[in-house]
Amino acid sequence: MRIAFPPAMTMGDRVHITALPRVVIVGGGFGGLAAGRELAGAPLQVTLVDSRNYHLFQPLLYQVATAALNPADIAVPIRRILRYQRNLTVLLGCADSIDLSGRRVILCDGELPFDYLILATGATHSYFGHDEWREPAPGLKTVEDAIEIRRRVLVAYEAAEREPDIGAGIEEWMTFVIVGGGPTGVELAGALAEISRRVLERDFRRIKPRLSRIVLIEAADRVLPSMSPHSSAAAERELRRLGVEVMLSTPVLDVDDSRVCFKGGQIATHTVLWAAGVAASPIGRSLGVPLDRHGRVMVNQDLTIPGTPRVFVIGDLAQVSFEGQQVPGVAAAAMQEGRHAARMILRAIRGARTEPFHYFDKGVLAAVGRGVAVADLRRLKLSGFVAWLAWLFVHIFYLIGFRSRFFVIAQWAIVYLRNERGARLITGNVEPLLHRGRHQVEPADSPPLENRPR
Amino acid sequence: MRIAFPPAMTMGDRVHITALPRVVIVGGGFGGLAAGRELAGAPLQVTLVDSRNYHLFQPLLYQVATAALNPADIAVPIRRILRYQRNLTVLLGCADSIDLSGRRVILCDGELPFDYLILATGATHSYFGHDEWREPAPGLKTVEDAIEIRRRVLVAYEAAEREPDIGAGIEEWMTFVIVGGGPTGVELAGALAEISRRVLERDFRRIKPRLSRIVLIEAADRVLPSMSPHSSAAAERELRRLGVEVMLSTPVLDVDDSRVCFKGGQIATHTVLWAAGVAASPIGRSLGVPLDRHGRVMVNQDLTIPGTPRVFVIGDLAQVSFEGQQVPGVAAAAMQEGRHAARMILRAIRGARTEPFHYFDKGVLAAVGRGVAVADLRRLKLSGFVAWLAWLFVHIFYLIGFRSRFFVIAQWAIVYLRNERGARLITGNVEPLLHRGRHQVEPADSPPLENRPR
Repeated sequence: MRIAFPPAMTMGDRVHITALPRVVIVGGGFGGLAAGRELAGAPLQVTLVDSRNYHLFQPLLYQVATAALNPADIAVPIRRILRYQRNLTVLLGCADSIDLSGRRVILCDGELPFDYLILATGATHSYFGHDEWREPAPGLKTVEDAIEIRRRVLVAYEAAEREPDIGAGIEEWMTFVIVGGGPTGVELAGALAEISRRVLERDFRRIKPRLSRIVLIEAADRVLPSMSPHSSAAAERELRRLGVEVMLSTPVLDVDDSRVCFKGGQIATHTVLWAAGVAASPIGRSLGVPLDRHGRVMVNQDLTIPGTPRVFVIGDLAQVSFEGQQVPGVAAAAMQEGRHAARMILRAIRGARTEPFHYFDKGVLAAVGRGVAVADLRRLKLSGFVAWLAWLFVHIFYLIGFRSRFFVIAQWAIVYLRNERGARLITGNVEPLLHRGRHQVEPADSPPLENRPR
Repeated sequence: MRIAFPPAMTMGDRVHITALPRVVIVGGGFGGLAAGRELAGAPLQVTLVDSRNYHLFQPLLYQVATAALNPADIAVPIRRILRYQRNLTVLLGCADSIDLSGRRVILCDGELPFDYLILATGATHSYFGHDEWREPAPGLKTVEDAIEIRRRVLVAYEAAEREPDIGAGIEEWMTFVIVGGGPTGVELAGALAEISRRVLERDFRRIKPRLSRIVLIEAADRVLPSMSPHSSAAAERELRRLGVEVMLSTPVLDVDDSRVCFKGGQIATHTVLWAAGVAASPIGRSLGVPLDRHGRVMVNQDLTIPGTPRVFVIGDLAQVSFEGQQVPGVAAAAMQEGRHAARMILRAIRGARTEPFHYFDKGVLAAVGRGVAVADLRRLKLSGFVAWLAWLFVHIFYLIGFRSRFFVIAQWAIVYLRNERGARLITGNVEPLLHRGRHQVEPADSPPLENRPR
């Protein structure tokens, strides 16, 4: 069934026809939300469509994956954020493709006509053509991903505690490999090291969680390759201090549910986390315009797409250049692009011409562990506790709403002061995870391993 | 593969044989946990096995289902709770059956030999033989159940907002039916009424959430049939004041994904929640002893099972009589039974005889809405704000650990002071839920409903 959603209908009305231009924003991430907010009060009918009902503060998603935060601490309902903006309607729906000539967004079960479009569907992870690695090595882009990673990490310790093979068997469960040394990989590795060293220590009887092996594998010759060499060196030093093994210049060749292979060796493990590749969301392909090798839309200087002045692409879905450099895929850039696209629409409805986008680089931050971060703030390079305070301040500042700020600060206080991670829940079906990598199955009536005298 | 888990093995050791009696506790709910704690310091090897890694504070689960609390606020890792109890090992595993003559618990993938057993696996919901109602009418026993109910309730409002049929179509989405007027049903109905009246009001454009219809259907002639008539009447009055339709003496005849049928009528709805029947967990059947019609094990006065003095059954899995009355299935009873079973084991290893169980009735409480509850405290019957304060105090008192108490209080403060429910996340795949009850599918190329002039 296809439904065309009338842009401005209130309950009880029939289709309410109005002449206001219709703006559709696809995606409620940093870019889409900033665009929507910028359009507040304008004589427009704005519809923001997202396949999720919440805006996710992705920079802290690794803390959900490592049981420090609840999903709801960093996910706020989009309609809650925008509830006072009367010219904007939020719609739950998944956008399949864009019909440029017909000026409509095709949803799974309907369509949304538009006069102006802002496409902000972001990126997903990429396995470089090895989609078979998706199951053994989950990535971290969504709340579901984070819960799955949390499950796997916590189940690994549970499985180690009950593993009958007390040599290699336990070791495989207590080895965690993170593929990719970008900010997500570094933050995950640091958090896993802290969990094993500080949080779980007294909770087990047979295993000693602090003996866990945490390995960060990066194909480039330094971690955080998008940051300054100073920050890379500082992050690597801190990771090693936390007990993380850092393997550089090591492209991964294969992953399955019992090992990771690379040139010259392999590591036996049941828990591999993927923080390596990023690919733009597939909807960009339906535009029929040139894409770069990551699938990002190559936009004009004003963020419109070639040949279609009323369609803007922003955030991780766009490849934006500024002063000869590519704008990085960070939240601040997406927000600036969202606001720019919104302002260009406001100019267009006044009959003015669009202007090129200017990127203001606010810098990049990455947390390594408790009290330790690295920061490239334009010319200033910070590391250690000062950088961590900057990281803390920026993340709390950009969180939306009193509620999220309060709970994130409270959870962190408990993590740091009491060495407790509050969200150590294994949800869903545990059985398949407990038996990962056990390919040989003994007959059910084999004698018990233990023959204890009565 | 079957694994026999040696009761006391530390990493690096070979099987460590010891002569201490082995106690196995199956289930980490109120009963199992109380039993485990009572055995602290005793010359025993205790193993607590649960298919979940956390102890769930079930009395507040309805608040997870209605987006007020996070799952982690009421779920604490069992091994965290018991980490300082060195004679106790926690094991993640699902118990399949009990081999009484062989004195072992059969797990899905192994077995646990025991000298003493405490069986505390609790209850699940029962559809009175209509298992086909499980999909259209989820019950509320586990964290996954609560998240599913939350999904359905939140998706219903999203679907209403985008429903093209602005008459009956929207109404079906905005009708919520709760089957069963016990404490869970009453609490769910009250919370849904508050969400619709106070929380969602400004967040939608087309629908008016306060026009939602919330119906509580009970087969008996009063709500809270296990409480006093005074409390039943007070709860019903408060529910009606909140706008809940209360239908009494109305057994449900059929449920599917677009309606609930009863004698003399039906209600069109896509959201039915099941709070009616309770059945003991199926492991009781493997004991080969008499069960009551709810599948509960009919235990002796000392909580052992007939013919087997070393096996205790407690909590919702047991039918316990005291002074001619059945002990109710509440947390306080399970905890008392757990402690009793543990003490009887301590007596048995000293060579003493077991004693009959004495139930101390602390009373029953149920919350109806914000600031309103009912309480039967022995002879004292309370309702309204005083009962709610008692409810608040008791629930916070019984929550385990500083962390849970802090976050539950903080979340409640925000719910009550700011009319905000913090966990309004729809996780998982939304598409199938959005199209519940839409049995007729139009061809994909049918003309759009809207023909808006350009």
